[in-house]
Amino acid sequence: MSDPENSSLHINPGSQNESVNPSFRAKRTPLRKTKDYVEGVLSGDRTILSQAITLIESRRDEHRELGRDILEACLPHAGKSVRIGITGVPGAGKSTFIESLGRHLIEKKGKRLAVLTVDPSSSRSKGSILGDKTRMPVLSTSQKAFIRPSPSSGSLGGVARQTRETMLLCEAAGYDTVFVETVGVGQSEITVHSMTDFFLLILIAGAGDELQGIKRGVMEMADLIAINKSEGDNRQAANRARLDYQNALSLFPEPPSGKRAEVMTCSALNNKGIVEIWEQIEEYLEYVKQTGFFSENRSDQSVHWMYETIHEQLKKIFYGNEEVKASLQEIREKVRSGEISSTRAADDLIRLFKSS
Amino acid sequence: MSDPENSSLHINPGSQNESVNPSFRAKRTPLRKTKDYVEGVLSGDRTILSQAITLIESRRDEHRELGRDILEACLPHAGKSVRIGITGVPGAGKSTFIESLGRHLIEKKGKRLAVLTVDPSSSRSKGSILGDKTRMPVLSTSQKAFIRPSPSSGSLGGVARQTRETMLLCEAAGYDTVFVETVGVGQSEITVHSMTDFFLLILIAGAGDELQGIKRGVMEMADLIAINKSEGDNRQAANRARLDYQNALSLFPEPPSGKRAEVMTCSALNNKGIVEIWEQIEEYLEYVKQTGFFSENRSDQSVHWMYETIHEQLKKIFYGNEEVKASLQEIREKVRSGEISSTRAADDLIRLFKSS
Repeated sequence: MSDPENSSLHINPGSQNESVNPSFRAKRTPLRKTKDYVEGVLSGDRTILSQAITLIESRRDEHRELGRDILEACLPHAGKSVRIGITGVPGAGKSTFIESLGRHLIEKKGKRLAVLTVDPSSSRSKGSILGDKTRMPVLSTSQKAFIRPSPSSGSLGGVARQTRETMLLCEAAGYDTVFVETVGVGQSEITVHSMTDFFLLILIAGAGDELQGIKRGVMEMADLIAINKSEGDNRQAANRARLDYQNALSLFPEPPSGKRAEVMTCSALNNKGIVEIWEQIEEYLEYVKQTGFFSENRSDQSVHWMYETIHEQLKKIFYGNEEVKASLQEIREKVRSGEISSTRAADDLIRLFKSS
Repeated sequence: MSDPENSSLHINPGSQNESVNPSFRAKRTPLRKTKDYVEGVLSGDRTILSQAITLIESRRDEHRELGRDILEACLPHAGKSVRIGITGVPGAGKSTFIESLGRHLIEKKGKRLAVLTVDPSSSRSKGSILGDKTRMPVLSTSQKAFIRPSPSSGSLGGVARQTRETMLLCEAAGYDTVFVETVGVGQSEITVHSMTDFFLLILIAGAGDELQGIKRGVMEMADLIAINKSEGDNRQAANRARLDYQNALSLFPEPPSGKRAEVMTCSALNNKGIVEIWEQIEEYLEYVKQTGFFSENRSDQSVHWMYETIHEQLKKIFYGNEEVKASLQEIREKVRSGEISSTRAADDLIRLFKSS
């Protein structure tokens, strides 16, 4: 559980994305009108898209409000992509995988790809691949791909909501495939799962240490497990791991989609197995679109996010309250040491909040 | 996710527990003083314990306040039990298992056992074993066992908090072992997991339909999986299931306790394997007490429950607001249909709340 005390949003101004026209890069464009932003986004202008995202991530109220107006106007044009959540253990080769699958999509399937991430950690060193675009040389220079790192810190709820809004803007800008990477911090997998249509877990062969990065419950959320680095001497181990995981998953209850997760091997480094994984994803999507699960799940997700946003706001109001702030730590320590009950502590804090 | 609109607490007055002295049963005792209740609970008086629990579950503010005063005074005497969460698929024989293990504890190990349940469903038909005490003939008549069903309905958060407080009162009354059963509705396993020291999952042999009742993530929370009904022709299948689950669990990351879950077979009907399961639980508890995980986990749980209770209260205040109530459904439907964004909807509702 993320500490609600730290739930105020600490948001970086965001980095300017590269533009077709390099002369745009250094320019600090003054705020445009909503209409100009909306037209820019809808026409697929990458610079304006980046600026609109920066508004959504801004700490300044008037920027955020403008950002939301843009989002609202773009909304009817959003939602037409497929949204793929991607997670994996550190060292599983997530960035190579994204580069490989992404290239397949833009070079062979005519897709336009947005790659986003949910990273509520304050430091980039914890594994966010998007901080290091050099690992994705083709995607990071392609006009058919749009890479946007997460705002660098803030509460998971806040960061995730911004990522979700960024996703909607990207969709309105014509990106028909969105990857949302999670770096496996806190509850981020659950959060990414709740904003995507398909959840892909990347593992490598060998039980034990390699799995330490995967938290409880994540395996059961996966729609597909890819055992990466199935190359050279490692192929046999990868195949064995595939069977092991396939057996393990068969013991699990059927997921709400009605479609059980597949386990596949691949070598992102050698672009092997990537086409097959995409075919599997397409098959899944076709299936859930036919059953109606796809659209129902999306509607549920939207409602879920409404509630999440409300609860995030309520917590922000509560924990931002001066009286609460002044007493929280002391009361919490009393609870920790068993001096007072959780209920009494909560009552006391709520009373402080109400009276001020 | 439980619907926050329905989060106002709908609580039954609770059923009076059987007393040693049957003449107590029908009597509607007038409210005693806090001190009398506390003394009664601490002396292990079952009638007074039942009444104190009823106060905690009451809908009336003055009763609940009295209940909390009692709880606060009992708190220094609570916490000395071991708390076992128990869940399982319907038909796995949970009640027979609880009866069998419970008998072992009170008859052979000299324990005093409290059996509670978290059941946020409005109907008892969904699988709560405690609604049917005839399934536990020995425990339900033993003076060394105290069985208390969950308040019959209410939000999961509300019901769970009351169950947790009931647990603390039972501990103060000298019950040194507490079973908290979950009926597998909503998020109840996670909730029970967050108030217990050990989490036991009861399954039966045979993959497929039998597992439908187990939700995602539950298997990974288990500290022990018991394959029940390992008797007669079923023994071979149970043994096979044990190996299958053992293999599956070995693929999972190590749990925070540092101790991997065991899978064991048993026949609660024939009291076979029950002793071994208890030995396994004791071994686990000894281990986590040595490492310090036991007490640290409990402290974390208390703090977790403080935050949970605060958030429950905040939601209650928000969704109980008249302006919010009047608009919520319409706004939610607009979100569901994609007419407005989740963020805009949340903003609108928060604005309504703040202005009223």
